[in-house]
Amino acid sequence: MARAGRAAAELRPIRFHRKFTMHAEGSVLVEFGNTHVLCTASVEEKVPGFLKGKGSGWVTAEYGMLPRATNTRGSREAATGKQTGRTHEIQRLIGRSLRAVTDLSALGERQISIDCDVLQADGGTRCASITGAMVALADACAWLRAKGSLTRDPLRDFVAAVSVGVVGGETLLDLDYLEDSGCDTDMNVVMTGSGRFVEVQGTAEGEPFTREQATQLLDMAGAGIAKLVALQREALARPPGTP
Amino acid sequence: MARAGRAAAELRPIRFHRKFTMHAEGSVLVEFGNTHVLCTASVEEKVPGFLKGKGSGWVTAEYGMLPRATNTRGSREAATGKQTGRTHEIQRLIGRSLRAVTDLSALGERQISIDCDVLQADGGTRCASITGAMVALADACAWLRAKGSLTRDPLRDFVAAVSVGVVGGETLLDLDYLEDSGCDTDMNVVMTGSGRFVEVQGTAEGEPFTREQATQLLDMAGAGIAKLVALQREALARPPGTP
Amino acid sequence: MARAGRAAAELRPIRFHRKFTMHAEGSVLVEFGNTHVLCTASVEEKVPGFLKGKGSGWVTAEYGMLPRATNTRGSREAATGKQTGRTHEIQRLIGRSLRAVTDLSALGERQISIDCDVLQADGGTRCASITGAMVALADACAWLRAKGSLTRDPLRDFVAAVSVGVVGGETLLDLDYLEDSGCDTDMNVVMTGSGRFVEVQGTAEGEPFTREQATQLLDMAGAGIAKLVALQREALARPPGTP
Amino acid sequence: MARAGRAAAELRPIRFHRKFTMHAEGSVLVEFGNTHVLCTASVEEKVPGFLKGKGSGWVTAEYGMLPRATNTRGSREAATGKQTGRTHEIQRLIGRSLRAVTDLSALGERQISIDCDVLQADGGTRCASITGAMVALADACAWLRAKGSLTRDPLRDFVAAVSVGVVGGETLLDLDYLEDSGCDTDMNVVMTGSGRFVEVQGTAEGEPFTREQATQLLDMAGAGIAKLVALQREALARPPGTP
Amino acid sequence: MARAGRAAAELRPIRFHRKFTMHAEGSVLVEFGNTHVLCTASVEEKVPGFLKGKGSGWVTAEYGMLPRATNTRGSREAATGKQTGRTHEIQRLIGRSLRAVTDLSALGERQISIDCDVLQADGGTRCASITGAMVALADACAWLRAKGSLTRDPLRDFVAAVSVGVVGGETLLDLDYLEDSGCDTDMNVVMTGSGRFVEVQGTAEGEPFTREQATQLLDMAGAGIAKLVALQREALARPPGTP
Amino acid sequence: MARAGRAAAELRPIRFHRKFTMHAEGSVLVEFGNTHVLCTASVEEKVPGFLKGKGSGWVTAEYGMLPRATNTRGSREAATGKQTGRTHEIQRLIGRSLRAVTDLSALGERQISIDCDVLQADGGTRCASITGAMVALADACAWLRAKGSLTRDPLRDFVAAVSVGVVGGETLLDLDYLEDSGCDTDMNVVMTGSGRFVEVQGTAEGEPFTREQATQLLDMAGAGIAKLVALQREALARPPGTP
Repeated sequence: MARAGRAAAELRPIRFHRKFTMHAEGSVLVEFGNTHVLCTASVEEKVPGFLKGKGSGWVTAEYGMLPRATNTRGSREAATGKQTGRTHEIQRLIGRSLRAVTDLSALGERQISIDCDVLQADGGTRCASITGAMVALADACAWLRAKGSLTRDPLRDFVAAVSVGVVGGETLLDLDYLEDSGCDTDMNVVMTGSGRFVEVQGTAEGEPFTREQATQLLDMAGAGIAKLVALQREALARPPGTP
Repeated sequence: MARAGRAAAELRPIRFHRKFTMHAEGSVLVEFGNTHVLCTASVEEKVPGFLKGKGSGWVTAEYGMLPRATNTRGSREAATGKQTGRTHEIQRLIGRSLRAVTDLSALGERQISIDCDVLQADGGTRCASITGAMVALADACAWLRAKGSLTRDPLRDFVAAVSVGVVGGETLLDLDYLEDSGCDTDMNVVMTGSGRFVEVQGTAEGEPFTREQATQLLDMAGAGIAKLVALQREALARPPGTP
Repeated sequence: MARAGRAAAELRPIRFHRKFTMHAEGSVLVEFGNTHVLCTASVEEKVPGFLKGKGSGWVTAEYGMLPRATNTRGSREAATGKQTGRTHEIQRLIGRSLRAVTDLSALGERQISIDCDVLQADGGTRCASITGAMVALADACAWLRAKGSLTRDPLRDFVAAVSVGVVGGETLLDLDYLEDSGCDTDMNVVMTGSGRFVEVQGTAEGEPFTREQATQLLDMAGAGIAKLVALQREALARPPGTP
Repeated sequence: MARAGRAAAELRPIRFHRKFTMHAEGSVLVEFGNTHVLCTASVEEKVPGFLKGKGSGWVTAEYGMLPRATNTRGSREAATGKQTGRTHEIQRLIGRSLRAVTDLSALGERQISIDCDVLQADGGTRCASITGAMVALADACAWLRAKGSLTRDPLRDFVAAVSVGVVGGETLLDLDYLEDSGCDTDMNVVMTGSGRFVEVQGTAEGEPFTREQATQLLDMAGAGIAKLVALQREALARPPGTP
Repeated sequence: MARAGRAAAELRPIRFHRKFTMHAEGSVLVEFGNTHVLCTASVEEKVPGFLKGKGSGWVTAEYGMLPRATNTRGSREAATGKQTGRTHEIQRLIGRSLRAVTDLSALGERQISIDCDVLQADGGTRCASITGAMVALADACAWLRAKGSLTRDPLRDFVAAVSVGVVGGETLLDLDYLEDSGCDTDMNVVMTGSGRFVEVQGTAEGEPFTREQATQLLDMAGAGIAKLVALQREALARPPGTP
Repeated sequence: MARAGRAAAELRPIRFHRKFTMHAEGSVLVEFGNTHVLCTASVEEKVPGFLKGKGSGWVTAEYGMLPRATNTRGSREAATGKQTGRTHEIQRLIGRSLRAVTDLSALGERQISIDCDVLQADGGTRCASITGAMVALADACAWLRAKGSLTRDPLRDFVAAVSVGVVGGETLLDLDYLEDSGCDTDMNVVMTGSGRFVEVQGTAEGEPFTREQATQLLDMAGAGIAKLVALQREALARPPGTP
């Protein structure tokens, strides 16, 4: 049985607005239904200390949520003076996911910093962030190629992410906030365009899950990610500024 | 002599997108040309400690800038663990400006928190924040009235802000980033709909300014603010969601 | 082909020293080969704010590493003034894993805080922490039962964790530091005594992994965890103080 | 009608104790009535990073208040671990005011750091700080000239500051704490010896102020600052150590 | 052989300026030669959490140094966001020393907070702080008695502190900065008016010291403290405001 | 009259486990009865900024306590984000004590960092830390000599520490937690193998102590430290790994 308005294996409406802001080399507002994340890619001609002089570039990410992105106003991390554990966990995940499809030596000694800022949250912000960040990263790499700064394309593949979960015994794709709050198992899956896994993070919030459920969740995520990668490709094929 | 594309006493194109995000009681994306600020107003049924049991409400503000809102990526204040002096100064100014037109006792013991987050910056972010926040505050008050939580309107007037400056000897209204960087004097003026001053902050960045220049700047700001208040009234008269 | 001294599917020597320190209600030094973690369980007659008056208990965890637990001295987090993202991620994982097998309402309004401090590190510290923490938690619950503070056992099952990985194309169980540094895929799996998943965290450090590899890794982890749970049971059956 | 003991346009007794402490190149205890601020100027042979190799110097300021400078003990900012927004705002203002009358290139690549520490507060601490800091800065420049480190005088003019306000409908100069607490409008004005404005910061604490009141306040401030600059000149003409 | 201008067993000129600032219940500028410390005692009608409802009072201290109290400008602890280990050590010592002569139950449930802020440093700031703080505490207790808030005197004795050291083989009393920098052993001694020890902190900066030297140092400190206590008594017998 | 199980002038059972962990150049678990501290010495080929290019080495220390080392769980300093004053005080003391017996120029431009982490606390943790750190430092120096990195031995003597106190009128050696909590005077003494003082820190927690008591305490500490140094020598003479 399907949930209201959408089949169990159906994604929410997905949209990518490229060139959403004017300064960043890549700037994408990604929508997974009511979850809206602004992903910007900034090219910086420097690398972290551990890479200096090694001829390799770096891709890193930071994540934030505007205080009233959610139903109840949260505290501003800049005001409390520290980022929560959840924020750290998510931004490390975004960075790892993007690096998995990037040939860092092809980037040269420069860094691309991805900022994912959630303007409106309705579940799945980390998956939307990875999926939108991929498009922003592609735009930044295109900008570098257009400038003649690169000799070969640093992007080896696409990467996208989606959540899957077990809610009331049923396996569902792309959980919104209400579904996520009530689920027994929540799994975030990051995969490449060629269908390989970059990251699998499954957590039993309630009842631990069986091996059979794990199999169903991975199947459903794989199909969802194939659709997301197709949508990323379409977005990059359209002229920027067209949602 | 006027600057390119706009007369010396002319505002940039001003736009208010109400209900820009879905959770906040007031949510306005305000545009002053290429400066875009998301202003949300959150109603919270609590007051700061010093007001507890006093029968009065409070209006406060926080300000932030996304790392790549500007031409060069800035550091994320949540990551560095502290807000800069500039951030503190601006958020205190926004709060004071809004309280100047609010009858706090009519609010009852509740707080309205305004978050002003700059998505794209091109000069004048604090003025755009105050002007947009006013509209978000009006929407939040309307929401409270619609719920029957208020017995009288807490808003006594409108408030808006604009920058004026002396650039190359000429007095200009509503400076963009390039004009602001090159100006000798920069003045931010906050006024009510009835033409009274809430705040005047004039700073000589280069040559100190004369009494005569001060008079010209205050005149030009007064005229600009009258136009901004008219635009605020128009935006609030339109159905929300219509830019 | 197996690695030096140990088959691909073989655990390192595992040991639990119960009552390793004298003050904590549960205190276990767990060894996974050369990885040594001191896990203490502290019973506190209080709960976090969000649980006050709800009749439910809480289990939480903190994780730390002594500066010279590793080959090169790391900085002391207390001295730098903040915990790294890695620390946050690990301590959240330990807490979630233990809560998955605990009936929090049976605990009553009290908290058990687990501290996992790594005295010596050689890979797999988070898995060793979870596995040792389970034994410390069991000792703390036994202490509460002996005192007559509990009417029923809050522990519904055992939980243990192990890492698996793909190293040079081969699937290996319980990676030590050298193996972990060179692996293409690293997966940490947390499972219950009844063979259900609490957490699966698979990360491709190098080449993304295939669905087939995912299946092999989950199989190998499941067999390893069954052995770890058997060793936990044996340790708890011995008189405390006997390694 | 005048306030008790002093006409509406009259300053409080103003005193400058030069060489108040022995180590600093300039050290002035300034008194505006019961407001006492110790202003020290420290010459340092370094400049901030953004000025390195540019052949220009810098003047900067820090501001603090001893915990019991006020009627009720405040918390020590060093103990709470952060400076308040008010502190940041004031120290930025002091630095800007002093730089407005300093020829930074004439300083050479060195920094003068001004510390303004309030020993006793009775209103107007930021204005007293600026006015005293000017004298300390002059002493530090004289010390550099005496050493032969400067080829020309970096000070182009004097700068001083005073508060003006509307209290109970009346315009008053140099508000003390009680007057400041009860005022409708509080304006801090920073001007040069030649009568030009460096900074105007007018804030309506209660009722917004009219254009006519703004004019009166600026007039009164201008006259007050002319007197303060005369007193600064007198103090610098006396032998140091003579109050 | 004596040092320039002063015999080996001679104190520097000691002065206490009572009522140095106007708000604090006790306010003393103490001078040990060129070391000048402002000690204020603030009466607060509250106690720390661990004393609530116990019928006992508390005496605590904070210590700070103005950035340019020393020959080279130090960083402002409020700006760096943390107090150094040295600051912590000194303020704990001041608090312990004062509590040693205070009958806390006679204070009632109130706290006296002593702030010791060094305006000018020339060695021995912690000893000057304790010695001046004692006089400020006495003034605050007298203020409470005059108000009728105390039924008996909480002060059981006087307390004072002095440094002694071995410099170039010679034992010296009350070291100034130069002597302190060059000494082999530095000992801070805190004693009561009745000649008992509250604290002895002897540190070999260079060559470890012998038992015989320890005896000489304690003898010399004892004689110095007897003189300091006599000076404290004289200062309290004079009308306040008389240096 | 003696305390239960031990004479007034008797140490608790003292044990040194060398090579307790495998990575550090020196690693000693020291036991003073139930107080157990892990002391590691890490050789680092760098020196602090103030020593760069001076041809001298450095010895420094950090101190920490596991949250449940004590009877009640304390907060983790890494989580609260700052080290307490007590921690700062102790780690500075350990560093000074070790430097007192080290010829820093013989070390060459390298630093030995000592970490003292308390696994189990029962009074006297700072004395145990110093005494164990001495043995770890000796092992690290031996490691450097064996590598051929040193031309002469940087250790000029041994150093050890012990607490003495006045409890119920009686003078006792090596106080455990209960004795320490109830004592009137607590004195920590650090001495060299040749019987000279490096540090004396005596504090009257209750009644101030007399000169006669000071003499008794110093005598008793001297005898205790002679025994500790003998035990250090024995431990270093045994093969490592033998407790």
